[in-house]
Amino acid sequence: MIEQEHLGGVCLNKGCVPSKVFANAAKHLDEVKHLSSFGISAENLSFQIHQLVSYKEQTMQQLRAGVENLCKTNKIEVIHGRANFINEHRIGVEMEHRFELFEFKQAIISTGRSPILPNSLMGNPRIMTEQTIFNLNEVPEELVVYGTDYIALEAAFSYRKMGSKVSIVLNNRADFPFDHAINRELKRILKKEKIHVYREYQLKQVTPRGDRILLQLTKHDNQLTLAGTHLYVETNHQPNIDSLGIDQVGIQLSEAGFIAINQEMKTTIPSVFAIGDVTDGVASAVKAMKQGKVAAEIAAGLSSEVDLTMIPTVVHSIPPIAVVGLTEQAAEQQGYHVKTSQFGYVANSYATISNQTDGIAKVIKDADSDLLLGFHTIGAGAIELISTGVTALELVGRDEDLSFPLYPHPSFNETILEAIEGLTDKAIHIKPKNKPLDLANK
Amino acid sequence: MIEQEHLGGVCLNKGCVPSKVFANAAKHLDEVKHLSSFGISAENLSFQIHQLVSYKEQTMQQLRAGVENLCKTNKIEVIHGRANFINEHRIGVEMEHRFELFEFKQAIISTGRSPILPNSLMGNPRIMTEQTIFNLNEVPEELVVYGTDYIALEAAFSYRKMGSKVSIVLNNRADFPFDHAINRELKRILKKEKIHVYREYQLKQVTPRGDRILLQLTKHDNQLTLAGTHLYVETNHQPNIDSLGIDQVGIQLSEAGFIAINQEMKTTIPSVFAIGDVTDGVASAVKAMKQGKVAAEIAAGLSSEVDLTMIPTVVHSIPPIAVVGLTEQAAEQQGYHVKTSQFGYVANSYATISNQTDGIAKVIKDADSDLLLGFHTIGAGAIELISTGVTALELVGRDEDLSFPLYPHPSFNETILEAIEGLTDKAIHIKPKNKPLDLANK
Repeated sequence: MIEQEHLGGVCLNKGCVPSKVFANAAKHLDEVKHLSSFGISAENLSFQIHQLVSYKEQTMQQLRAGVENLCKTNKIEVIHGRANFINEHRIGVEMEHRFELFEFKQAIISTGRSPILPNSLMGNPRIMTEQTIFNLNEVPEELVVYGTDYIALEAAFSYRKMGSKVSIVLNNRADFPFDHAINRELKRILKKEKIHVYREYQLKQVTPRGDRILLQLTKHDNQLTLAGTHLYVETNHQPNIDSLGIDQVGIQLSEAGFIAINQEMKTTIPSVFAIGDVTDGVASAVKAMKQGKVAAEIAAGLSSEVDLTMIPTVVHSIPPIAVVGLTEQAAEQQGYHVKTSQFGYVANSYATISNQTDGIAKVIKDADSDLLLGFHTIGAGAIELISTGVTALELVGRDEDLSFPLYPHPSFNETILEAIEGLTDKAIHIKPKNKPLDLANK
Repeated sequence: MIEQEHLGGVCLNKGCVPSKVFANAAKHLDEVKHLSSFGISAENLSFQIHQLVSYKEQTMQQLRAGVENLCKTNKIEVIHGRANFINEHRIGVEMEHRFELFEFKQAIISTGRSPILPNSLMGNPRIMTEQTIFNLNEVPEELVVYGTDYIALEAAFSYRKMGSKVSIVLNNRADFPFDHAINRELKRILKKEKIHVYREYQLKQVTPRGDRILLQLTKHDNQLTLAGTHLYVETNHQPNIDSLGIDQVGIQLSEAGFIAINQEMKTTIPSVFAIGDVTDGVASAVKAMKQGKVAAEIAAGLSSEVDLTMIPTVVHSIPPIAVVGLTEQAAEQQGYHVKTSQFGYVANSYATISNQTDGIAKVIKDADSDLLLGFHTIGAGAIELISTGVTALELVGRDEDLSFPLYPHPSFNETILEAIEGLTDKAIHIKPKNKPLDLANK
């Protein structure tokens, strides 16, 4: 394994892990403020972001040490340096003061991608991307989040809970990218948090002025100026291939400029595979890990396959969002005869017990076949619960396959049960739409 | 609906809900003490149990109001009084100062069961059962828990986190009632909590002495005296049928003394059904709710069925336990060619991020068919994750059905993935047992 920076990639070192560390701390910080009803009280609550940044660094070091240790135990030699392909079976590695050549039968490229901040936004330490937003040693006074991806939302919720004034500008979009029921509940929660959402605005210009940053936004003919002390920007990305020498060995790129691969994750040179963010599609550690395992299996002569259709999307907002499968909109566009059902956390007994009543669970089925098509949850426990949805979709479940089994009580799990039961109007804790059937005269 | 006390039954009013209120508060109380690494600090942390008891009362009232409201919306008439059967189509209800007769086509008995405290233990407010253990207005100084059921464990963890000195005496048992891997991890965690576990002891005598209670325990020929300020006793139960008049209409009892029912939940009188704790088997709201729905469907002429084989068992210990399907011991006894795999939370990245590294996930399959047989987890998120196991068992999943799909990263969900991958020695974060295959020379 050749690595020019730290083992663990963007997810561990610059992406999901830092974001989750912040989201987890923010959740606790929020909870501590609301424990008095449970009889728990404390005085002089304070939050020191620099301590959290140290904890983040420690956590990353610990996770990296874990990866290094796994390499050792599995007898994987780790070479620290910068690699470039010489030909389809040779790679050169530039180390500090030497250059070494290695021969390979097969190689896997997994160099990731990097955010591209427009030139005009570079150089200002208060204008941040996904890779720098959790390096701050101060809680922003006023944070403007321009974007809708998971890091945008995690940053918005985390810093809000830490005390920032936060606005979200939907980058050209009319709404968040989820099923419209999730979008609706998310916006209700954001409103309660006093996080203002600006829809359909496009960023025209950014002007630093003293300690503040002015944003010129346009929406059709409207102009709006927003000001903040800090700005997070969801950017485009480019693959990390500059020094790899892939063109000189004939590895071709996709239309979008990432490394082109086939179903077996082979590049146009059959001895070289590519996986993860350096290839097309969404940036995702989940995808990269799966592709990595499968590429290794194929390289080893085993038969293996990746199917990303049912990839769960997870956001550590407060409360979290977790979704898998088709949204109602997508299911309709694909021509399904769609039936949906939604259950509110407010009617879930464990949500009442634990005082976490924000959220909904929504399920979608094809009314013709009863096959389940999508699971969409925002609410406590959503992330752990999404694997129930993934498993049901993977095993081609019908709604009766989820209404027949038993769910713990009281539990958040019952939000899924009741949403599923709602598909056949059998949910006990959903008010009947019409008057009950007159079964006595049946 | 005829109800002599409060709507909602034992679970809402005297059982799981109070226990979950306490367990949830105890979890928060414990968390608050460990937030400094996240940069969160507070002073003069204090816990007022009487405030929690008020919150519990409020929560129960709110949940009861929800049930009452659902009755109203569904046009269910609620009659407050004490019922007894006159014949197979007539029931009498004693209200405060009158008696009314009702005719029915079908009736469902769902009166539950009550703990039987031996006479010698009655009358001491510091000797408590599942129905009184969460009514205390003081945190016990020294609590002795005699039992292993979920309320015993929830009481032990909750009061320990609130400051009690706690011991658990396994009522005659050699161990806790879970898969031995869960038992082992549970005992490790209990030891860390300084909760001493006395195995195989039987309670011989209880003697109040001043503010304390002395317990005489025996184990084979050994004698032990334990002392505490409070004692929780897991008891036997009797069905709540005293005033129902069921013998006079010919409703028969099972050998164990509960109401006997057939597969359709009909008693020996076909117009009368019985469900839940008043019938045989484990006391469980999950079972009762399912039986209630199914009995109602059968009474309404629909075809319906209860299958309790895959009932999940959940304990809100800290961290929680959630299990479904066969234990390794049971699978072996049933003659399966058992293969198991276990993954520790300590190697899960989200557990490291959120500082919740206690716990394990264990899966069991039949090596001949690859069919999954059991899921056993103790650890953060276990309760929400158990529905993945339930769904996989319900849909007759093989291990490949759970290793092929995608899991959020980083997440607790990945403990299941790695346990499953371990069944075929493919888990990335489990150290290889032998040296890696020499794939290069394949």
